[in-house]
Amino acid sequence: MSFSLQKMRSLVEPVALRQGLSDEQITTLFARAAWTTVVEPGDADGGVIRETLGTDKSLRLLLGEKSPDAWARLTDGALEKKRIHHALDRWRPRLDQEAFARALRQARRWHQRLVTPEDSEWPAGLLDLGPHAPAALWIRGDTAALAGCATSVALVGARASTQYGEQVAAELAEGAAMRGISVVSGGAYGIDAVAHRVALASEGSTIAVLAGGLDRWYPAAHSTLFERIEREGVLISEVPCGVTPSRWRFLQRNRLIAAIASATVVVEASKRSGAINSAGHAASMGRPLGAVPGPVTTGTSAGCHRVIREFGAEPVENVDDLVRLVSGSDDHPVLQSAVGPLETRILDALSLRRARSIEEIAAVSGVRADEVLEGIGMLELSDAVRAKGGGYVRSR
Amino acid sequence: MSFSLQKMRSLVEPVALRQGLSDEQITTLFARAAWTTVVEPGDADGGVIRETLGTDKSLRLLLGEKSPDAWARLTDGALEKKRIHHALDRWRPRLDQEAFARALRQARRWHQRLVTPEDSEWPAGLLDLGPHAPAALWIRGDTAALAGCATSVALVGARASTQYGEQVAAELAEGAAMRGISVVSGGAYGIDAVAHRVALASEGSTIAVLAGGLDRWYPAAHSTLFERIEREGVLISEVPCGVTPSRWRFLQRNRLIAAIASATVVVEASKRSGAINSAGHAASMGRPLGAVPGPVTTGTSAGCHRVIREFGAEPVENVDDLVRLVSGSDDHPVLQSAVGPLETRILDALSLRRARSIEEIAAVSGVRADEVLEGIGMLELSDAVRAKGGGYVRSR
Repeated sequence: MSFSLQKMRSLVEPVALRQGLSDEQITTLFARAAWTTVVEPGDADGGVIRETLGTDKSLRLLLGEKSPDAWARLTDGALEKKRIHHALDRWRPRLDQEAFARALRQARRWHQRLVTPEDSEWPAGLLDLGPHAPAALWIRGDTAALAGCATSVALVGARASTQYGEQVAAELAEGAAMRGISVVSGGAYGIDAVAHRVALASEGSTIAVLAGGLDRWYPAAHSTLFERIEREGVLISEVPCGVTPSRWRFLQRNRLIAAIASATVVVEASKRSGAINSAGHAASMGRPLGAVPGPVTTGTSAGCHRVIREFGAEPVENVDDLVRLVSGSDDHPVLQSAVGPLETRILDALSLRRARSIEEIAAVSGVRADEVLEGIGMLELSDAVRAKGGGYVRSR
Repeated sequence: MSFSLQKMRSLVEPVALRQGLSDEQITTLFARAAWTTVVEPGDADGGVIRETLGTDKSLRLLLGEKSPDAWARLTDGALEKKRIHHALDRWRPRLDQEAFARALRQARRWHQRLVTPEDSEWPAGLLDLGPHAPAALWIRGDTAALAGCATSVALVGARASTQYGEQVAAELAEGAAMRGISVVSGGAYGIDAVAHRVALASEGSTIAVLAGGLDRWYPAAHSTLFERIEREGVLISEVPCGVTPSRWRFLQRNRLIAAIASATVVVEASKRSGAINSAGHAASMGRPLGAVPGPVTTGTSAGCHRVIREFGAEPVENVDDLVRLVSGSDDHPVLQSAVGPLETRILDALSLRRARSIEEIAAVSGVRADEVLEGIGMLELSDAVRAKGGGYVRSR
């Protein structure tokens, strides 16, 4: 690597959340920032490599530094050799050490901060993404607003929204804001914009997750909205300055929204809306998922009905339904004293409505099937879980 | 009993579906007709007694004829002694042999026919009601239209319907009619009336199930509609002439609608609509159940959303969804050659969407759990059934 530790420190410190960092912390932060300039969001091979070697060693591997030890650890179970070579071939054309420095300098210029899994501010929900989790988040605005992720709802929906969808989005955003639930959305036209605007107007916290770098506002027409979010909430992207939003990055942004928020509600969406993609991510992570039903005569809510039908989303009619959905994901009041981390993970993998089998719970929670079985037993005893349709649901 | 066989024959023949009946058939028909004048619809004690003794012997028991043999059979497992006495006490005040004759004479006068489980026209779906099944049906109109029950959809909903609900009801009824699916409903104001009227206008078959006797039209404002249904479809009641519709009889009528139809769709219903009651019956019989989503801002579709949420009803957006729902209940094209009656019963007990456990399937189908397990295996092999969430669903 062509950066001295001192150089790295001078680049990293202006965007770090805290000062007085150790050399190791500086190296890690630098590597994470650099990683976001090379590897596309959601790249699971990259995630596995980082999980195995740590981000710093992974970056050095990318840069071609020889390390038989790292190579042995990687090929020893984590990934096939061929696959690693494929990944490295994929990333190499992007490798530009000057871009590492540029990303950090531009971030400073645009008042950004770099948040990483080492920070307490890192949204806990991102853990559920496993190897698809981002290496770091670039943020603008109020860092403290990130804490809102812990009790938040993603309100997502059509850009081409109707008056009906906007009315419901406004009611839900207002109700969420008034109950201290942060409103997460994608900053797009239509439902997203209403959700952000009404959350702000109701003096609530709002989090915008964008698909491109935070040096430019996309869509540009929302500049005023984004500036207000920067003052009163927070904006998040997993790509550095200068990166434009692409189709892929929009889809990956949707996965980020679903992962960050405690629950996701599709407010209004036609059959092929991107919001269905967010809903799919939420469902596959076992997160509480809702959808607002709407008229069947216009097709403008067909996507909502699809996620109810195909992903078992709860019909959401009002703020009470939304609150139930959100609190289902974090509050397990029955248990708070009785359960360990294993039970909590199992509980998080359960739906209030759709029964999940032991195998499904194991897949979603990442807990071994035999441990799931044991944990479920404990949870059934404390009435936190009940059998339903041959599987299990969380009790209300 | 104070009726000679000859007297019974003269009363029964004019309302029987066919002539040249044996003495035993006459006795049974007479007893079934008489039973409807005494015992309220849905009375399970009455059903168990009739199942145990046959309707003729049950009627004689009601009339106080001593039969140690009958009594022994009843108390030998079927019902507790105390319970039988309670039931007889409940029915005795109604016992009026003159009413038996009057019911049959009035039925004749009002061009009614008496349909019983002995007739091939008896709707097969009524078997699922078990002891709650009616002893007989009084019908007016085209007896052949009863065959339509085998491929039918119940379109039910609010009396106080909106333009939206009526529009969707009309589209569904028209589409059903054009595909040879009979439209079953309750003849009430609002959604029911639209469903009947549009089915008729589309030259389809329609079946009205009323809560009171068929000598008077309720509501009276629908006289013209009912007369048209009488000419081109069929009207059904399980109570004889002179019996007024009561709250209880409306609820029991709802159970009859759900049992007769292949599938039930709640088109528009507020939170406390009687249509939810129909949906509950359909769900508890394991029948395909759908509901049309609607705006959440008016409360006029809140009942639809409730049955989606609580009974796992499929969101129905258009006629294709309706057809899928209806054909799910009767058509198992994959299998038609391969499966026996056991597999068919299991298949009927399965939902397209909500996974059911072996125990649930056993409960709904009335098939023993070990036989369910065996049958499910066969059905899985022919791809008619698949595992989902620890239970099983029917494949589309």
